[in-house]
Amino acid sequence: MSAKPIAITLGDAAGIGPEIIAKAFRDAPEATRGCFVAGDLATLRRAAGFITAPGAPGLPVAELEAAHQAWDAPPRCIPVLQVVPARPPVPCGQVSAEAGRIAGDCVLWAARAALRGEIAALVTAPLHKEALSAAGPPYAQYPGHTELLQAEAAGHLGKSLSELPVRMMLANDELRTVLVSIHVSLREAIAAVSFDSVLQTLRITHAALGAALGRAPRIGVAGLNPHAGEGGLFGREEIELIAPAIAAARAEGVDAHGPFAPDTVFMRARAAAGHPGEFDVVVAMYHDQGLIPVKYLGVDKGVNVTLGLPLVRTSPDHGTAFDIAGSGRAEAASLIEAIRVARRLAR
Amino acid sequence: MSAKPIAITLGDAAGIGPEIIAKAFRDAPEATRGCFVAGDLATLRRAAGFITAPGAPGLPVAELEAAHQAWDAPPRCIPVLQVVPARPPVPCGQVSAEAGRIAGDCVLWAARAALRGEIAALVTAPLHKEALSAAGPPYAQYPGHTELLQAEAAGHLGKSLSELPVRMMLANDELRTVLVSIHVSLREAIAAVSFDSVLQTLRITHAALGAALGRAPRIGVAGLNPHAGEGGLFGREEIELIAPAIAAARAEGVDAHGPFAPDTVFMRARAAAGHPGEFDVVVAMYHDQGLIPVKYLGVDKGVNVTLGLPLVRTSPDHGTAFDIAGSGRAEAASLIEAIRVARRLAR
Repeated sequence: MSAKPIAITLGDAAGIGPEIIAKAFRDAPEATRGCFVAGDLATLRRAAGFITAPGAPGLPVAELEAAHQAWDAPPRCIPVLQVVPARPPVPCGQVSAEAGRIAGDCVLWAARAALRGEIAALVTAPLHKEALSAAGPPYAQYPGHTELLQAEAAGHLGKSLSELPVRMMLANDELRTVLVSIHVSLREAIAAVSFDSVLQTLRITHAALGAALGRAPRIGVAGLNPHAGEGGLFGREEIELIAPAIAAARAEGVDAHGPFAPDTVFMRARAAAGHPGEFDVVVAMYHDQGLIPVKYLGVDKGVNVTLGLPLVRTSPDHGTAFDIAGSGRAEAASLIEAIRVARRLAR
Repeated sequence: MSAKPIAITLGDAAGIGPEIIAKAFRDAPEATRGCFVAGDLATLRRAAGFITAPGAPGLPVAELEAAHQAWDAPPRCIPVLQVVPARPPVPCGQVSAEAGRIAGDCVLWAARAALRGEIAALVTAPLHKEALSAAGPPYAQYPGHTELLQAEAAGHLGKSLSELPVRMMLANDELRTVLVSIHVSLREAIAAVSFDSVLQTLRITHAALGAALGRAPRIGVAGLNPHAGEGGLFGREEIELIAPAIAAARAEGVDAHGPFAPDTVFMRARAAAGHPGEFDVVVAMYHDQGLIPVKYLGVDKGVNVTLGLPLVRTSPDHGTAFDIAGSGRAEAASLIEAIRVARRLAR
């Protein structure tokens, strides 16, 4: 296990981020040991209040002077490194440029700390897209965490964005999937399936998941079309693009198999009691192909992992939930799982 | 419950059909009561042998003179109506024109019996596409059961094929989904999403499932694109085609909702212990969108239902499995479930 601490970034302070962070420290002392909040002390103090019954003793919040002090924090205390100027917390449930900027600053601080080697990983609480956009430069140009981290990492390495391709992995207890494309229309997703994009996805999956598992992951590759094209009857992408990319990856030592019929490859990969999965991960050709099975049994424990970056980044698989922010009702299960996954990936 | 019997068609006699039929009568006497095999006596006698341990007493096979006698068969006896000329059984595990023709003849007999009102439903054991194709006219023109039944029903009603649109529903214990399109490439599936095709799917789902449930089904409609297009950012089919079709269907009294993000609508519809589903059925925009979640927890109990025909037809959600035909190893769970679903739909 890495001796470096893990930074949990604040997220949008008007959303559920701070209170699920507080819950994670309260409810999962083992998982959160060695973690700290890259954020704002006053916001975490308020969040600790949101999850405490009236009259009950509040959860202590400790201010760190440096990241490595995270290991010295006692269990069920929330260690916070003030990485943004101190100011009164923003109101809950409202989009604001201020919250967007604070959230972005916390992520940027943590990205730089990770690239400098001071922290083992980033676990990012959710951002609000509109707030990020309202925050102006540099944040307004990024649709979300992934692009911000990619840009920062590329700059650090002196590479262009196209030289640092990233992929999203979604994982829960039973299933992992890596997506060839994410937030584009289905029509554009089909166009994004190419020899290069599939091969690149296989290489990234092999390298990143291999580092986490300590061995080459067994990768199942989904086809694009029903029945993986049924020998070319329902589409030729499997024959012309996907199978050649798998062959090229195998020639490089990647343990990739397929392309398989999309409607059964996830069932085959599912690892559950009495049902060992055939694959460590499924490479999915588009967003919903992979996310439908990962979310089918519930979204509580889904974790989002960005693969391909020179740093470890995980996040819960949900948004800011402005509608319940401040009520203390939000579940921390996905965040806690994201912390566990980050720790495993950072070893 | 309909007093009419249910016909189970033989399927390809070289595949696992006959032996899973024999297992269903042996293992599920309640479900198979009032059912009979529209098939071939000698093939069922051989199949009964496949599933009987050496030296053990064989399962009795009784020849019926008419379909309605199915109700008189004792439990754990296999009642067979000889609907094709008697001849020696075809060899197991081999594609043959003879097996294709026999299989087709059994389906055609049952379709006509259903259209005449003599039977309550057809449960069809699997066909082998190549054998059907080798059988020549009229069978070679049909990719499978659905097209054969559609043509026969249209002829019976004096309608054209386009006047008798059908849709495939896949169902298991937890989830039902009806597909806008099935065996076409994903590219063609996108093109097949139109105002008319979605509205037609909603009408067929409403009518057919409504008849089975005895009330208007609550229908959740999946979007086509990730996040159902996120307000037009990732595709406009939701705004231009799907939402208007839902509105038109609602104006006709169809209880349709959506379009919803595809990656969570199936999870929301899933009905399991402690998790009441929000919808009775999900209308899926393409094959894998609906089939990935239906198959995710296992294919044992998946049932295929053809909606839109003037007859009830269900089938197990698997193929002929030539590789294990004759070994007695094939599971009958999906066929038994198909019989149960047919009985419910035929009421």
